[in-house]
Amino acid sequence: MDINSAKQILDEIERKQFAYKYVLSVVMNDASTVAPEGSYTARGAAVGTLAGETFKLETSPELKEAVNFIYENKEDAGQEYFRRAELLRENIRKMEKLPVDEYMAYQELMNNAHVAWLNAKKNNDFASFAPCIRKIVDTQIRFASLTDPDKDPYDVALDNHEEGTNREYYDSFFEEVKETLIPLIAKIKEKEQPDNSWLKVKYPLDLQKKLSDIIMDTFHLDRSHCVIGETEHPYTSGASSQDVRITTHYYENDPVASIYSVIHEGGHANYELHVNPKYDYNILSGGASMAMHESQSRFWENYVGRSESFIQSFWPKFHELFPEQTQGHTAEELYRCVNLAHPSLIRTEADELTYSLHIIIRYEIEKKLFSGELAVEDIPAAWNEKYQEYLGVTVPNDSVGCLQDVHWSQGSFGYFPTYSLGTAYSAQILDTMRKELDFDQLLRNNDLEPILNWLSERIYQFGSLKKPGTYVPDITGKPFTAKYYTDYLKEKYTKLYDL
Amino acid sequence: MDINSAKQILDEIERKQFAYKYVLSVVMNDASTVAPEGSYTARGAAVGTLAGETFKLETSPELKEAVNFIYENKEDAGQEYFRRAELLRENIRKMEKLPVDEYMAYQELMNNAHVAWLNAKKNNDFASFAPCIRKIVDTQIRFASLTDPDKDPYDVALDNHEEGTNREYYDSFFEEVKETLIPLIAKIKEKEQPDNSWLKVKYPLDLQKKLSDIIMDTFHLDRSHCVIGETEHPYTSGASSQDVRITTHYYENDPVASIYSVIHEGGHANYELHVNPKYDYNILSGGASMAMHESQSRFWENYVGRSESFIQSFWPKFHELFPEQTQGHTAEELYRCVNLAHPSLIRTEADELTYSLHIIIRYEIEKKLFSGELAVEDIPAAWNEKYQEYLGVTVPNDSVGCLQDVHWSQGSFGYFPTYSLGTAYSAQILDTMRKELDFDQLLRNNDLEPILNWLSERIYQFGSLKKPGTYVPDITGKPFTAKYYTDYLKEKYTKLYDL
Repeated sequence: MDINSAKQILDEIERKQFAYKYVLSVVMNDASTVAPEGSYTARGAAVGTLAGETFKLETSPELKEAVNFIYENKEDAGQEYFRRAELLRENIRKMEKLPVDEYMAYQELMNNAHVAWLNAKKNNDFASFAPCIRKIVDTQIRFASLTDPDKDPYDVALDNHEEGTNREYYDSFFEEVKETLIPLIAKIKEKEQPDNSWLKVKYPLDLQKKLSDIIMDTFHLDRSHCVIGETEHPYTSGASSQDVRITTHYYENDPVASIYSVIHEGGHANYELHVNPKYDYNILSGGASMAMHESQSRFWENYVGRSESFIQSFWPKFHELFPEQTQGHTAEELYRCVNLAHPSLIRTEADELTYSLHIIIRYEIEKKLFSGELAVEDIPAAWNEKYQEYLGVTVPNDSVGCLQDVHWSQGSFGYFPTYSLGTAYSAQILDTMRKELDFDQLLRNNDLEPILNWLSERIYQFGSLKKPGTYVPDITGKPFTAKYYTDYLKEKYTKLYDL
Repeated sequence: MDINSAKQILDEIERKQFAYKYVLSVVMNDASTVAPEGSYTARGAAVGTLAGETFKLETSPELKEAVNFIYENKEDAGQEYFRRAELLRENIRKMEKLPVDEYMAYQELMNNAHVAWLNAKKNNDFASFAPCIRKIVDTQIRFASLTDPDKDPYDVALDNHEEGTNREYYDSFFEEVKETLIPLIAKIKEKEQPDNSWLKVKYPLDLQKKLSDIIMDTFHLDRSHCVIGETEHPYTSGASSQDVRITTHYYENDPVASIYSVIHEGGHANYELHVNPKYDYNILSGGASMAMHESQSRFWENYVGRSESFIQSFWPKFHELFPEQTQGHTAEELYRCVNLAHPSLIRTEADELTYSLHIIIRYEIEKKLFSGELAVEDIPAAWNEKYQEYLGVTVPNDSVGCLQDVHWSQGSFGYFPTYSLGTAYSAQILDTMRKELDFDQLLRNNDLEPILNWLSERIYQFGSLKKPGTYVPDITGKPFTAKYYTDYLKEKYTKLYDL
């Protein structure tokens, strides 16, 4: 083997992996948006079979040999091939230890679990979904025991979603976050809340759809490579920098929900759309990690979308589209209403301040599920108790309680913490950006392009070339700390509520 | 090898082939309905790569050995495995002769050709699409020279779409059809036409969509396994009896167009939906042939949908949905208007009588393209000349002329003739059905289920188990003849126009 033939093997096999990834991404997007309800058996059989093929590809001796050769010849390989080999090598290490039949059964389980979750949520029937969670958690614990026998299985899950993290890391991070949140939320409880009843009247769906188009334009989402659909739970799927899909969920009596879904998913999409297209057909395509991805979705959603400056330039468009509903109200009121800090039931609709408490609840439940301290059938009770304790919220039923999120049905245990971590990443990055750009002026001018370019240049273009943990220190010149995030929240909410 | 291991190999490999077929079907459906415009490069790369994988699967020595073993042990294999082996064997025979790189390049060409066609049609720019047609025809001629060197390449194309057909077969079939059509159309030219201006006013799109739902219910299309979307050119894609998609195209000033698209595609869909689900993961799934498929789409569209009895039970629903537009009109008028025999530009909107002339024009052009008598750049001139000659219609531009159909962009040369052949198949089948069911009474009662069951029992359930040419003789007890089709047209139009 020489370096050129090793590179060629990598190119060929990664192109095949891309092909599988692309079609599976389209199939899953189709499943969530337009596929007939009764198609899941056929889809499960197809997806399960192709998962077996990708498994073979990922663990083929040919690929392993080429990957090892490149990994050991870093100088000759160059940065891009070396990083590809590094990422593939870790994947091979893990995949090799999984029995192919168990891996395939797990893929089919994912397909069925999604349908089971949809039905359970619709029918408020946690018991019907519980066996799926049990199987998923058991399988993940078993897989972790095979791939990383010396590590705790939930640490493995956390590391899978953000390299270098574990329970200890998140325990201390969340401790710091909690220390800020709890007293702030307590103080706000004493304060008067803005009246948002004018945002709870009928905002016709066709006009809300028009608003989505306006938002997509405002955030410079390239419509020729990014379309929007509708699903129960909004998401972004990026199969390539050439093909990104976002979804939202419209509520007739709550236009704010969809506005921030579109901005949030649009943030994910802009990340995917601006990865260097030369990575399209290999493992460097897509974002650097889950936390880096959430850092961007939540940057656009909160630091941009929920800022006073942005609302100033957004207000006239909103008012023009809904003149009757917004009659007599102001940008300042909208700003206060979309930042109303109020403990609530639904994570995706939570305000910036209470948001991380929703995450902490999920983190604590996942931790106990994996350690065996909590049985699956006791999730609803644990969930409801924590919502009462941390947020003072009574959960009326599981559909809006422990069944509200899609994540567990997709096996994404260890994912939730990255939302908070990513939000804290981008708070620190924003601090640097403010020194280089007149951030608020750009928002007031409805001119988001310089911000998008700044992020593309420093983050998006690299895809997975750089390790996720390097961005914050490289961009800000300082090690990561939660302080920028907690300071931001303190400052914003002290001012908002005159604390 | 023994029979059980041969069967097991077949099951395993066919399940993989199903998986590829399923995902590619979803991807192509996604491409036509919701995918972002700029996604075709990524999709082309993915589809091209997977085509290489399916090619390897289809030509694997393991499959070939198992197929041959089963084929040679017909008794032990049983009818179903034998038929699967027979179909796979013919496929292997052809595929083995194609160089894999040329085959893959052809798949990518298909992907790009579809986009090129969409743009050419939109921009009325035949020249931009011509190179694609040239490449497709050249490739098909080259492939035919490899797979069937002793046969004429267009005969190969015809046989690919309907086993046992060739130019001689169709030449004589179309001669017989023409003999009936030309004088009938000439006589009708002298007659007064019904006034259909009330069907050319605004029928709002959201109500037309509701009408589609009503039609799907009327035709017993199972919505849990069949969804409807919107595309420029309506089609049906059936990835499994569990997952069928149909599309339609709504025109605000022409509700009739979508009505008959939905009924036509619904006919294809009902065929796919009623194939025995035990064939879901092998080559017996789906219809027996293109002509058999078109026999069913056109059975429901014309023999049912454009009949006087059906219109009687359909009229009240139509009138209720569009009370203003249909005010003062009658079922009888609707019946006359949807059967208005009038030479026109667009095949999919043509009436039953002139329809086959549209097909004959395409057949004659394809024949000459493959023989080299017609150059690709001369297609528009030849097209326009034939529309003038056969239909007396002046083609104003290529978008509504030779660019109107999707078929050539998909490489479906030899497909068009199956529309007429299938229509003639089902005319003969209808004659038998009428002897067993009170056909008109069922239509008047809006009770289509006995008809659907009759067809499912005799045709749909078998999928590809039986040879396509056996259905008409088996069901009707007589060899196939065009006479039932021509007699039907003569009787219907003589009465309609009082000839």
